[in-house]
Amino acid sequence: MNYQQVLDEIFLNIRSLENVGKVASYIPELSKVNPDQFGVCLKTLDGIECGVGDWKTKFSIQSICKVLTLSYAYKILGDKIWERVGVEPSGNPFNSLVQLETDNGIPRNPLINAGAMVICDMLLSQSKNAQTEFIDFVRKISNNPNIDYSYKTAQSEKSIGYRNIALCNFIKSFGNIRNEPIDVLEFYFHICSIEMSCQELVQTFMFLVSDVINSKDNQSILEEKKAVRVNAIMQTCGFYDESGEFSFRVGLPGKSGVGGGIVALHPEKYCIAVWSPRLNAKGNSFRGMKFLESFTSQTNTNIF
Amino acid sequence: MNYQQVLDEIFLNIRSLENVGKVASYIPELSKVNPDQFGVCLKTLDGIECGVGDWKTKFSIQSICKVLTLSYAYKILGDKIWERVGVEPSGNPFNSLVQLETDNGIPRNPLINAGAMVICDMLLSQSKNAQTEFIDFVRKISNNPNIDYSYKTAQSEKSIGYRNIALCNFIKSFGNIRNEPIDVLEFYFHICSIEMSCQELVQTFMFLVSDVINSKDNQSILEEKKAVRVNAIMQTCGFYDESGEFSFRVGLPGKSGVGGGIVALHPEKYCIAVWSPRLNAKGNSFRGMKFLESFTSQTNTNIF
Amino acid sequence: MNYQQVLDEIFLNIRSLENVGKVASYIPELSKVNPDQFGVCLKTLDGIECGVGDWKTKFSIQSICKVLTLSYAYKILGDKIWERVGVEPSGNPFNSLVQLETDNGIPRNPLINAGAMVICDMLLSQSKNAQTEFIDFVRKISNNPNIDYSYKTAQSEKSIGYRNIALCNFIKSFGNIRNEPIDVLEFYFHICSIEMSCQELVQTFMFLVSDVINSKDNQSILEEKKAVRVNAIMQTCGFYDESGEFSFRVGLPGKSGVGGGIVALHPEKYCIAVWSPRLNAKGNSFRGMKFLESFTSQTNTNIF
Amino acid sequence: MNYQQVLDEIFLNIRSLENVGKVASYIPELSKVNPDQFGVCLKTLDGIECGVGDWKTKFSIQSICKVLTLSYAYKILGDKIWERVGVEPSGNPFNSLVQLETDNGIPRNPLINAGAMVICDMLLSQSKNAQTEFIDFVRKISNNPNIDYSYKTAQSEKSIGYRNIALCNFIKSFGNIRNEPIDVLEFYFHICSIEMSCQELVQTFMFLVSDVINSKDNQSILEEKKAVRVNAIMQTCGFYDESGEFSFRVGLPGKSGVGGGIVALHPEKYCIAVWSPRLNAKGNSFRGMKFLESFTSQTNTNIF
Repeated sequence: MNYQQVLDEIFLNIRSLENVGKVASYIPELSKVNPDQFGVCLKTLDGIECGVGDWKTKFSIQSICKVLTLSYAYKILGDKIWERVGVEPSGNPFNSLVQLETDNGIPRNPLINAGAMVICDMLLSQSKNAQTEFIDFVRKISNNPNIDYSYKTAQSEKSIGYRNIALCNFIKSFGNIRNEPIDVLEFYFHICSIEMSCQELVQTFMFLVSDVINSKDNQSILEEKKAVRVNAIMQTCGFYDESGEFSFRVGLPGKSGVGGGIVALHPEKYCIAVWSPRLNAKGNSFRGMKFLESFTSQTNTNIF
Repeated sequence: MNYQQVLDEIFLNIRSLENVGKVASYIPELSKVNPDQFGVCLKTLDGIECGVGDWKTKFSIQSICKVLTLSYAYKILGDKIWERVGVEPSGNPFNSLVQLETDNGIPRNPLINAGAMVICDMLLSQSKNAQTEFIDFVRKISNNPNIDYSYKTAQSEKSIGYRNIALCNFIKSFGNIRNEPIDVLEFYFHICSIEMSCQELVQTFMFLVSDVINSKDNQSILEEKKAVRVNAIMQTCGFYDESGEFSFRVGLPGKSGVGGGIVALHPEKYCIAVWSPRLNAKGNSFRGMKFLESFTSQTNTNIF
Repeated sequence: MNYQQVLDEIFLNIRSLENVGKVASYIPELSKVNPDQFGVCLKTLDGIECGVGDWKTKFSIQSICKVLTLSYAYKILGDKIWERVGVEPSGNPFNSLVQLETDNGIPRNPLINAGAMVICDMLLSQSKNAQTEFIDFVRKISNNPNIDYSYKTAQSEKSIGYRNIALCNFIKSFGNIRNEPIDVLEFYFHICSIEMSCQELVQTFMFLVSDVINSKDNQSILEEKKAVRVNAIMQTCGFYDESGEFSFRVGLPGKSGVGGGIVALHPEKYCIAVWSPRLNAKGNSFRGMKFLESFTSQTNTNIF
Repeated sequence: MNYQQVLDEIFLNIRSLENVGKVASYIPELSKVNPDQFGVCLKTLDGIECGVGDWKTKFSIQSICKVLTLSYAYKILGDKIWERVGVEPSGNPFNSLVQLETDNGIPRNPLINAGAMVICDMLLSQSKNAQTEFIDFVRKISNNPNIDYSYKTAQSEKSIGYRNIALCNFIKSFGNIRNEPIDVLEFYFHICSIEMSCQELVQTFMFLVSDVINSKDNQSILEEKKAVRVNAIMQTCGFYDESGEFSFRVGLPGKSGVGGGIVALHPEKYCIAVWSPRLNAKGNSFRGMKFLESFTSQTNTNIF
């Protein structure tokens, strides 16, 4: 299959449609982005890489990073992470506090804000240098020493992050945050601020397609039996209360961020990243969802 | 791979463990079943069929049938069914009314009780003979004219089905049931009462693995683009508030019933059914969950 | 104080304002009522009775009757009724099922639909002739043998009472309804259908102002220590999720019905009933709320 | 009536019963209090003051102070305060965040934590010196220049106040807190830390029985039409999710605090304060509830 041609055709088609939706405006730094940027990058297991549009432009990956913190914590802490966070879809918006009240401070899964905070807390308990060590991990799996936090975006988000401050203190009140909320939030806002291009995203996420590819030092990034579970959680929980819809339309494990990025992957074939800042009503990239629906349909690579 | 040997080994292993959990006792008819029966059947796309234990014993498939009513309604009514039922996991127990209140009577998905009732209502609006036509559909896809409702079980469930009566009248109060609740419930209790053995279950569900197999009359049972969506819904919503867990541990689309049956399938390879009446705290077969976790692990057929 | 003059003045004043709100249309029989009828009746402890407008016209008292079923059950069954129903305000609309799910089928108080159904169930368990005995009780305390159920209204409500059917079956599923839901609902729809004029309402409710007045046979209707508790429940729970507002503005124990009636009382002074069918957004009589706010303000009889 | 004798008798009776319940332990400073202290003070409109037990010992009045912040804000800001806080009972525990999510950040009433924070925020917007001005107001109405905040208790509560920090930031995320949460919380923790004895409490709260008494400078503390509304809110909302129970058993407007204090008043007769640190399951003083139930019963001063 000529993947470049497929990307080009779908790209042109989606770009010709009206680009509806709003850029995430609640984070001041994100609202400054040109809303009509649009890029896609695909990398296959057999080494093909192709891209279209703004695929080399960096953007704020936001919640996509929660898959990386989960993978990192799962790698170094193992199955004991599941004592403090679940693996069930939440059925609620991404920042809901209701479920936490019902579930006594145990977040439903590690890909919602509450769950990612608990993961950050575990990493902080493990090491005072968690913030540095984590970005080193990301640089390693992406083979890219230039990946970094955006201190400006982290700062911007912290300045208005009242709901996240509420969330973290609420979990703390149940005892499921062990460090001081202010420290956990500092780490959390930083992981959300990481910037990558679509090209860098697919490079980074290839370890979930195959454990071999990225390991230049012959070390495993994440054992396969853990990787399949991370993929399973992305499938059921990657898109907040639109996870079922993504599974229904696209049929791949994936994760979105409010910066307008989506990464998705076929566990035996490829990783793909799409970026377009305008978001639908559920907070997921409008064009990203459309693109991926067309892509799995045309390439017949829906996993179901 | 010698599938028979794999089934046998896992079967012996699981059977040697303590069989915990309770048989569903709220339906009088179900509580009469011998709780330690245990059977498995596997059928592959290339024609292998093998089984172990009580794989030819009929049992009440209960909620597993919701996949069949969904498939039938999707086949004859098409995408308009999604106007009245969602595709998102519920994040709540199977018979919760809370979500319906929030969502104004639109059930989260067609595999929870509320959603299955709305599907039944659609079918009743389509035809007064829906109950007969539906069992004919099931007989056709299973190539088995002996599949039938259990009038005794339907009657038993009706006699104590207060929560389901509440659910159906509640949806009616929002206008999302069009027929009289008493008629919808009559149909609903019947579909839940269908009896099949593991062998019959896999035979019946093969149309979701491949559309070709079962069509002796050259007619499609369900077009592939619809089948993948039914599979996607099973993946995210098939196990009530344990759907994420099943996805996490087993990694296959599947559906459970309170009779202790579970059917699961690999979209490119096989269909498998397990039956063991003792249920875990979430209402899914204790041994069934364990068996399938071992099976996808040993055969390396987790879809993620 | 010249009460007649006060009633007249406020009546003219309120009538001159625009009469906004909607008549309860979900019960077909209620929607036929002329929406601009407006009546008031006051009866004081020292024997004064005065009225204005349509104060002698009968209307459907609906939920107001829940105070009477509560009083009757409390009288004959005593404090054991509190094992199956609470005394807390619900904080939710009158027909919410959410709270019941949280509270395992124990309704928050006897003045919401769920609670009144549990009271009806208790009375039915006490006597097969509860429906007849209850109307006899009402006739006795009102000194009026002509008070009766409206079979037409009861039938009308039953024909569309899906939410109430849901509610009753839901409580049954928790075991807090002992009789068959269909029988409880039959009784429940009847008690809601009772018709009275404002004049008859104040006459009926005087036993909550003073136990002596109505007892022509020297028998107590309800001992004072029980009456104060019924009044306390009316104060905190009498107006669904507008109970605090009524307490705040009017400052009297009272109870409203969707027929547009409100009865309120000053425990040491009087009973007053207002009727006007147009309802505000919370389901309470628009003019009734306004009238009573002016009345306690002008007569300085707010109990606080 | 010999009030002293009544107090003495009930006091002895209650003290002879087992003193069950737990001292609020989540605030380190409160957990140091001797749990078996017990005091009562009564002051009548006609000038009688009597007390028993530890009625002159200061304790942390905690949430009781919310009535004072409400009264102060109502006095200086008038009815516009109701645009940002409701008057309905919450039907939920005192620190629930669920309701705020449903109600878009508008707390149900000013006597739950969320509502008191919004009141604090209003006062801070009105004056940078709100904290000083408020304690001056309290000293004035109590005729007691020694009433003060306990900086130690405020600090103690702040050190573990994660749930309150969550609450305040959550309301801020809806825009219903205008100042920085950290400043609102500082003020909030201080108002909760005020210390008074039972004797001082009744002296302070007499302005809600009669506006005349405390005004040595001929200035009104709170006009009667506002005072009745504060009383009405205490009646329906003063005891968290036990407000209905208190109304039912005691029949007076009142307010409790987790320090074990309860103040209650009869709008035409008296103010009474009870203090005993052990709390029942709902967080209200075990002995306090019992004492007041006996008191209104024996003195026949239930307002209903």
